[in-house]
Amino acid sequence: MHALTYHSPGRVVVADVPMPVIGAPTDAIVKVTLAGICGTDLHVVRGDFAGMVPGAVVGHEFVGEVITVGASVLHLRPGDRVMGSDFTACGHCRWCDGGNHWHCRERGFFGTGSAFGDRLSGAQAEYVRVPHADTTLALLPSSCPPEAAILIGDNLATGWAAVERAALEPGDCVAVIGGGAVGQLTALSAQIASAGIVVVIEPNARRRAFAQSHGSLAAHPDEAGALVSKLTDGAGADVVIEAVGGNGPIDLAMSLARPRGRIVSIGTHAAETYAFPVARAFRDEMTVSFAIGDPIRLRTRLLRLVAAGALDPTVVIDARGTLSDAPDLYRQLETQQRLKAIVIP
Amino acid sequence: MHALTYHSPGRVVVADVPMPVIGAPTDAIVKVTLAGICGTDLHVVRGDFAGMVPGAVVGHEFVGEVITVGASVLHLRPGDRVMGSDFTACGHCRWCDGGNHWHCRERGFFGTGSAFGDRLSGAQAEYVRVPHADTTLALLPSSCPPEAAILIGDNLATGWAAVERAALEPGDCVAVIGGGAVGQLTALSAQIASAGIVVVIEPNARRRAFAQSHGSLAAHPDEAGALVSKLTDGAGADVVIEAVGGNGPIDLAMSLARPRGRIVSIGTHAAETYAFPVARAFRDEMTVSFAIGDPIRLRTRLLRLVAAGALDPTVVIDARGTLSDAPDLYRQLETQQRLKAIVIP
Amino acid sequence: MHALTYHSPGRVVVADVPMPVIGAPTDAIVKVTLAGICGTDLHVVRGDFAGMVPGAVVGHEFVGEVITVGASVLHLRPGDRVMGSDFTACGHCRWCDGGNHWHCRERGFFGTGSAFGDRLSGAQAEYVRVPHADTTLALLPSSCPPEAAILIGDNLATGWAAVERAALEPGDCVAVIGGGAVGQLTALSAQIASAGIVVVIEPNARRRAFAQSHGSLAAHPDEAGALVSKLTDGAGADVVIEAVGGNGPIDLAMSLARPRGRIVSIGTHAAETYAFPVARAFRDEMTVSFAIGDPIRLRTRLLRLVAAGALDPTVVIDARGTLSDAPDLYRQLETQQRLKAIVIP
Amino acid sequence: MHALTYHSPGRVVVADVPMPVIGAPTDAIVKVTLAGICGTDLHVVRGDFAGMVPGAVVGHEFVGEVITVGASVLHLRPGDRVMGSDFTACGHCRWCDGGNHWHCRERGFFGTGSAFGDRLSGAQAEYVRVPHADTTLALLPSSCPPEAAILIGDNLATGWAAVERAALEPGDCVAVIGGGAVGQLTALSAQIASAGIVVVIEPNARRRAFAQSHGSLAAHPDEAGALVSKLTDGAGADVVIEAVGGNGPIDLAMSLARPRGRIVSIGTHAAETYAFPVARAFRDEMTVSFAIGDPIRLRTRLLRLVAAGALDPTVVIDARGTLSDAPDLYRQLETQQRLKAIVIP
Repeated sequence: MHALTYHSPGRVVVADVPMPVIGAPTDAIVKVTLAGICGTDLHVVRGDFAGMVPGAVVGHEFVGEVITVGASVLHLRPGDRVMGSDFTACGHCRWCDGGNHWHCRERGFFGTGSAFGDRLSGAQAEYVRVPHADTTLALLPSSCPPEAAILIGDNLATGWAAVERAALEPGDCVAVIGGGAVGQLTALSAQIASAGIVVVIEPNARRRAFAQSHGSLAAHPDEAGALVSKLTDGAGADVVIEAVGGNGPIDLAMSLARPRGRIVSIGTHAAETYAFPVARAFRDEMTVSFAIGDPIRLRTRLLRLVAAGALDPTVVIDARGTLSDAPDLYRQLETQQRLKAIVIP
Repeated sequence: MHALTYHSPGRVVVADVPMPVIGAPTDAIVKVTLAGICGTDLHVVRGDFAGMVPGAVVGHEFVGEVITVGASVLHLRPGDRVMGSDFTACGHCRWCDGGNHWHCRERGFFGTGSAFGDRLSGAQAEYVRVPHADTTLALLPSSCPPEAAILIGDNLATGWAAVERAALEPGDCVAVIGGGAVGQLTALSAQIASAGIVVVIEPNARRRAFAQSHGSLAAHPDEAGALVSKLTDGAGADVVIEAVGGNGPIDLAMSLARPRGRIVSIGTHAAETYAFPVARAFRDEMTVSFAIGDPIRLRTRLLRLVAAGALDPTVVIDARGTLSDAPDLYRQLETQQRLKAIVIP
Repeated sequence: MHALTYHSPGRVVVADVPMPVIGAPTDAIVKVTLAGICGTDLHVVRGDFAGMVPGAVVGHEFVGEVITVGASVLHLRPGDRVMGSDFTACGHCRWCDGGNHWHCRERGFFGTGSAFGDRLSGAQAEYVRVPHADTTLALLPSSCPPEAAILIGDNLATGWAAVERAALEPGDCVAVIGGGAVGQLTALSAQIASAGIVVVIEPNARRRAFAQSHGSLAAHPDEAGALVSKLTDGAGADVVIEAVGGNGPIDLAMSLARPRGRIVSIGTHAAETYAFPVARAFRDEMTVSFAIGDPIRLRTRLLRLVAAGALDPTVVIDARGTLSDAPDLYRQLETQQRLKAIVIP
Repeated sequence: MHALTYHSPGRVVVADVPMPVIGAPTDAIVKVTLAGICGTDLHVVRGDFAGMVPGAVVGHEFVGEVITVGASVLHLRPGDRVMGSDFTACGHCRWCDGGNHWHCRERGFFGTGSAFGDRLSGAQAEYVRVPHADTTLALLPSSCPPEAAILIGDNLATGWAAVERAALEPGDCVAVIGGGAVGQLTALSAQIASAGIVVVIEPNARRRAFAQSHGSLAAHPDEAGALVSKLTDGAGADVVIEAVGGNGPIDLAMSLARPRGRIVSIGTHAAETYAFPVARAFRDEMTVSFAIGDPIRLRTRLLRLVAAGALDPTVVIDARGTLSDAPDLYRQLETQQRLKAIVIP
């Protein structure tokens, strides 16, 4: 079958790879009808992730049709239209029972080498093998457009996880650092979840304009402090969500939050440590949380919001193509010409 | 001074009445610059309320300017622009400390006789005496239009109290029974507070159209069951807010709610008892709550929402006039030609 | 095999009945090593429940060992020591996903005829067939004594469900109406869940003494109002949990609760309607909820509490016997000589 | 009058100082009948705090009787028995309205120089001036022993603030780092607030023994990891409360917490920054909060718990004396021979 594969740092290529096969009785094979390209995939292309060998298939966002199921798959049948989660989980351990599938010991993350758990082949391909299919997959209801399901399976789940963690109170002033696809979906989620004002903080002018045309205010990072201060009578934001990753953005987040404010970081952190301003955090009774999107826990709620028309995540999609277009789409995303791209394998 | 007074069942008249004077050191006298007419006032006109003697001044929604303060008023000065609450509270008892001012033993309700506590003269007048002024009044910030403050001081506080009690989860399907000013503000509050779908249930076609043009769905009571069932795959509404009062509307609310659903009643209940379907409520693990608006507790949050532009309650105001217009405005409200009227004394 | 069966109103007998067999691929057959007799079983004996035909096996509380499993049971194997839930649920529908297994359409309740769902044979027997075994059963950890697991599977789950619904705040005054096994376990649960004072209201002096020797206060129903008033400076209880059933106990609960108080009813309600004091409930902003124990949702939490030594539900067990002792144990429970009886089949 | 005053690093002395006088209309003068010595006072003695000049009166924990009140004090009269808060707040700003008095701009902290706000003379004296008396003081109910009120006014409020911030779920495993008075009261608070297991981590063997005799487990810091791991099947503590201060204890707290665990720090942080393990915190979705005790917000709840007999904070008091004994009591606390000392001026 055809699939998008990692070639070498900076380069992905379409290649012919073997069809996946059932490897465990809880597996399913899914024919991918739609796949997303995520900011995380840009790291894969750069060669940042351990275990991502040349020829490995990329991608972790997908929607498709079940082709075959293992003997222990109870709730799915060939022909079912399904939406994926970017990672897998067993569905019946202590962590899964509590709704925290990310911490399941059997977690695997599609198409990212061994960076986040067991190595799994990616989903930017004609077919993908899905472990723990009863948990990892969900039936795609007719009320949810396939492109929305791509976002529920990863980027929107991440944005929503941040908002859930922040425990918004109605009218809260929420600053979101980063105006990529995840940041924009975080902003939309905060609006839905009763924020009073949402400010997207982003250096790219087009991304700021996107935020402004979708219900948020926007500011360049250099002007964020002044704007947030003005909006809050000098107190600071009630909640700051950091959706970029790295120590600089956390520092910015700390500086924007009010006393007793809540900071939630959903960006990836490569550095081992961060010089945390502990004296100020103590004096101001701050709370700092880290959150990772969990589509398995969150998809029921997100599907409801999409079905109700309360939230349309597909507004961030501004590029679509076939597998052979994918290398070019990666370049457009890398240079921030595009916000979010979808591939039809 | 001039004031709107109760004359006899069905009749209010503008009359000349004595200026109010400071009666306790915690009182303030406020020059009323704007007063609202509320559905509760229609009951006053009908003569439903004990202690509402001929000549008594009507009205409990007001915005104005402080003229004089008693010796123990600490936080207000003559000249301050203030917004009122429909009832008074002492501000430092067990109930007030917990934010539940309605249950304060020193509660008085303006312009409604002795129905809800100590008899207080009403606010549809040039001046009004305000007991416990430090608690009952709040400074009117420049970010809040006076007409919005009228609504925060009563109708919007009631709608918001319902939504607060209902403990909405994002995406909830919320049915609101009643499309008067309170019902419409409840629907807007639910939208802000993360409802997925809001359905206003109301026999009056113009009020249904209003709801539909302000972000909600609408249904005639006879069609409510079918619509809610369709919207929820047959399960029923997550939350039903009853904003009419009486046993019929509660029965309707019970019938519309899903298993483990939450019903909040904010309508006034004249009957002493209700034939509660207890066997069904047990089998379906229902929750039934009653809530009364508390502007003193809620105004900080509501002012934030108005300042942020997240909520504009003034959309329900469709009639304005002077004191001499007031008797006619009462008639228009009584016949449901108007949703909400404001008087400039 | 031997089992306790319904004979006629007022009479249960030990009888020889056919061994259960796997009927669906998600079934398991469990050898019962311990079974509980519940207050609900007393209704069965009286012949109150539809579908409870002569010869039907009684009982819904059990602990045992898996003997055989159907082809689709994934997480259990013969030889596993397991604890049961009093009812079954499919584990993957909308209701089960949300943790509300009681509302699953595939609910069956062991040994109670067709009163609460699909008819299932009871567990006061040597063996029992368990539908949806992966969901209905849980592995019995070594940290949980089998007798404690009997209680987690029904009575304690009911008491805990009430406390969970009541959303206790630390220091709350909680009145529990009814000092049977469920009422006593509710009182213990409330103590654990941060109640300040718990008052058990019960006419039987021995049951009041039991409550008093296990951390609660106790009062005869005739004296409950005076005691609660004294404990709360006249305000009323923050929370009242009704664990008897019927309209009289709900009336008592309403009378004991403070303004803005919360009433949770976990007793069974045979009457279709209750003359609810709606005017008072509105004036005092009351909340009335109904709750049913869900061992499937609650057992993880309850097992933790037992393992930590924070809660020992077995203190209510005061009678133990074999199957042949069971008819006599029923009589002792019926006459309130005993609080809770356990049978070893 | 006599008072305990700072003399020079390491030395406090009883001295004759001027009687305090009313300085603002919201002030009260309180005759101190009981004062506490706090761990923070040990820092004062060391000379660590800016603005703590020789001759300044020490102490911030007190109970007493109102002697005189300023003209704007509304709710207190001479002769009232009152309990203090360790810091003052205006009672009607944005922060006070929200229950977060620590962030009030008019905060002053008794007897600690200018370290935490406006300089206020201390309470280890015969009399003390109390700004914003209506807010800072509360009537001492007869249901609360004066020594308990001393603890509610500072140490217990700090412990409770940690538990409130941690949002305990029933059965949680809570590790408390530090077995001083605050740590022990944190442990007792966690027990009340539904913890399953509490582990106090403390190098001093006598303090570990105290914890063990008051319902908690205890471990030396070197053995804490092993014990917590064993208690939680290797997962880690649900909640870790750091009650010592400094970067080492936070590191220990991070190491003891499970994935998605919550760390609350209530110890004082002198260092400006902490090398926060950000990569691990992200991977494990941790939450880190800082909290400061707020007796003004918390005393209503804490008084209820004491009145109900649910919590007796006075168990930590193991030394009592007069003002002239105070220098010696400081030495005993400094050398950890005592846990908590009370002075009768």
